[in-house]
Amino acid sequence: MKVNSSTLNPEPERSSMLDFIPSVPAVEDAELQQKVIARLNDLTKPQGSLGRLEDIALQYCMCRGRADASIDKMKVFTFAGDHGITEERITPFPGEVTQQMVNNMAGGGAAVSVMCRNANIDYAVVDIGVNADFNGAPGIISRKAGRGTNNFSKEPAMSSGDCVRAVEVGMALGADAQADLVGAGEMGIGNTSAASALYSMLLDCDPRDTVGPGTGSTGELLEKKKRVVVSGVEKHKQEWDGTPFDALRRVGGYEIAGITGLIFGCLSKKVPVVVDGFISCAAALVAMRMDPKVRDYLFFAHASAETFHTAYLEKEHIRPILSLDLRLGEGTGAVLAMQIIKQATACYNEMATFSAAGVSRKIT
Amino acid sequence: MKVNSSTLNPEPERSSMLDFIPSVPAVEDAELQQKVIARLNDLTKPQGSLGRLEDIALQYCMCRGRADASIDKMKVFTFAGDHGITEERITPFPGEVTQQMVNNMAGGGAAVSVMCRNANIDYAVVDIGVNADFNGAPGIISRKAGRGTNNFSKEPAMSSGDCVRAVEVGMALGADAQADLVGAGEMGIGNTSAASALYSMLLDCDPRDTVGPGTGSTGELLEKKKRVVVSGVEKHKQEWDGTPFDALRRVGGYEIAGITGLIFGCLSKKVPVVVDGFISCAAALVAMRMDPKVRDYLFFAHASAETFHTAYLEKEHIRPILSLDLRLGEGTGAVLAMQIIKQATACYNEMATFSAAGVSRKIT
Repeated sequence: MKVNSSTLNPEPERSSMLDFIPSVPAVEDAELQQKVIARLNDLTKPQGSLGRLEDIALQYCMCRGRADASIDKMKVFTFAGDHGITEERITPFPGEVTQQMVNNMAGGGAAVSVMCRNANIDYAVVDIGVNADFNGAPGIISRKAGRGTNNFSKEPAMSSGDCVRAVEVGMALGADAQADLVGAGEMGIGNTSAASALYSMLLDCDPRDTVGPGTGSTGELLEKKKRVVVSGVEKHKQEWDGTPFDALRRVGGYEIAGITGLIFGCLSKKVPVVVDGFISCAAALVAMRMDPKVRDYLFFAHASAETFHTAYLEKEHIRPILSLDLRLGEGTGAVLAMQIIKQATACYNEMATFSAAGVSRKIT
Repeated sequence: MKVNSSTLNPEPERSSMLDFIPSVPAVEDAELQQKVIARLNDLTKPQGSLGRLEDIALQYCMCRGRADASIDKMKVFTFAGDHGITEERITPFPGEVTQQMVNNMAGGGAAVSVMCRNANIDYAVVDIGVNADFNGAPGIISRKAGRGTNNFSKEPAMSSGDCVRAVEVGMALGADAQADLVGAGEMGIGNTSAASALYSMLLDCDPRDTVGPGTGSTGELLEKKKRVVVSGVEKHKQEWDGTPFDALRRVGGYEIAGITGLIFGCLSKKVPVVVDGFISCAAALVAMRMDPKVRDYLFFAHASAETFHTAYLEKEHIRPILSLDLRLGEGTGAVLAMQIIKQATACYNEMATFSAAGVSRKIT
């Protein structure tokens, strides 16, 4: 459904706002599960000795709905958007860095671009809400849903219509990704503030606990960031309709909405998504609150160094694949986790079985 | 120096036994360190935001002794050997599984073989002490230093001469590896018992604490394993000359000695080594006790699920790269860590700098 922002009711009903989200197929198939576990136990290794790689292979097969699911093509999307909150001067980097880094990503010089190239992963950076024009520069997918958000400490970051458009952009890219595994990352100066506000609203916790240094705010800058996020959250909580969508459009961002949409688009094709760090996880939280079935399809790449991330993962009983003190975003943690997920499925598909390899089984 | 076991003094002096170990070049170069850190800080990312990847890139450059060190070729060795201790019936898998798995590794069906193939890492399995003949089977490097160890609960696992030979086999392979990064793994039914005994002797701790399930010993089998290792350690501690070499030859194994040697061989060429799990770490512990400078060259791949491994890593203040509940050995954890190390050096070498990419720096 295409929504025109001017015709939207400012406080739409929950059901109508979620109508544009496709339903997520359930990951429940006892027979398939048994089949995958039987194969894992027949591979030439002590049972369970590949640890979390076995859990990953099982989850991957369950998501794809087949016992021989393998990973050939992988793709990472970095969604980029600007944030009105930066006018409060709460970030150590100037807002134009979003635009500059999008060019750097497309040019192959950003960490995520380097990593994808080395891991043979398709890469795309998406301008979903940057406050600048790229004029058809090669390597940048142009899907503007807006030119930066509004300052959420004063007003909603996005109109409902613009936010729906951003989610739809992500959904379309996810549905068309033509990959066996998709990674999600982001770029947007100011977006740790947006993500912190989202966590605070959706988890109903104190925003002072969810705000951290981001790209490097310390001392008075960090205190100011906390004050700004606290005032924004307090303001919006009074007008919030209680839905994850309305929280997303009030304090989120275009790139966050894009990742939420990407998840639903991929899941509509039963393609699991690897969620990167603090900000991508906030987008995933929105998606999981919209439909709890989402969680079965997500791989959480890493525990980032951003203050609240580990607390969030523990709160939701999520054990990420890596813990490398990354706090860059972009999708960098997702790439590293995707290489591990690919190895897990490769072992599952390519290892010899006890009988085929003539290896003796456990005797006791 | 080539040592003939028959001419060896049964209790050689410490210095003479270490004469065959090449000296390890010191990793100390303040100028180089400054240069690498300056480049890391000039890359288009907030300072330090690549977390442990930055530490890894720095360590790699320091080991190689150059500010532009990159990883092209990687190689993993799996050393295989049998263990006399298996005659005590303390392992759930029969001893012949060592031989069968060597064939499986060479044939490409083992987990480590699958992973190396997928990560484009050269792979070799080395028969350094298997109690079986492979008759020149393709893909198996034949460097027998013995046909399985003696039962260390009754006598030393290896003569000094055989143990020196095993270390020398590893040293030669390491020195000739012609790779930018080398990974070390092992295969040997019974070798968690040997490693547990080694940890107990070298760390002077209770062997009851260092013994774990290995490939899957539980209940009475695990209790028996503990009793056998305890009696072996108690016996050898009375005759031990206090050197890491003598501990290695009394309770270790050919594959463990091979990895100790591999480390010294690689380090003689300033090539860092990625140490796999519980058993490979015991081999690394021997090497670090022989020469503390070794530690600067090692990457510890992962915290395995084997009971004592995490306690050991914490005791030595080692933070491994991964924690995935692996307990397979072979080098499987090393492969996954090598992919991450390669990404760390790729980011270091291939990312754009702020000035080159026209990205604004931090303003506060």
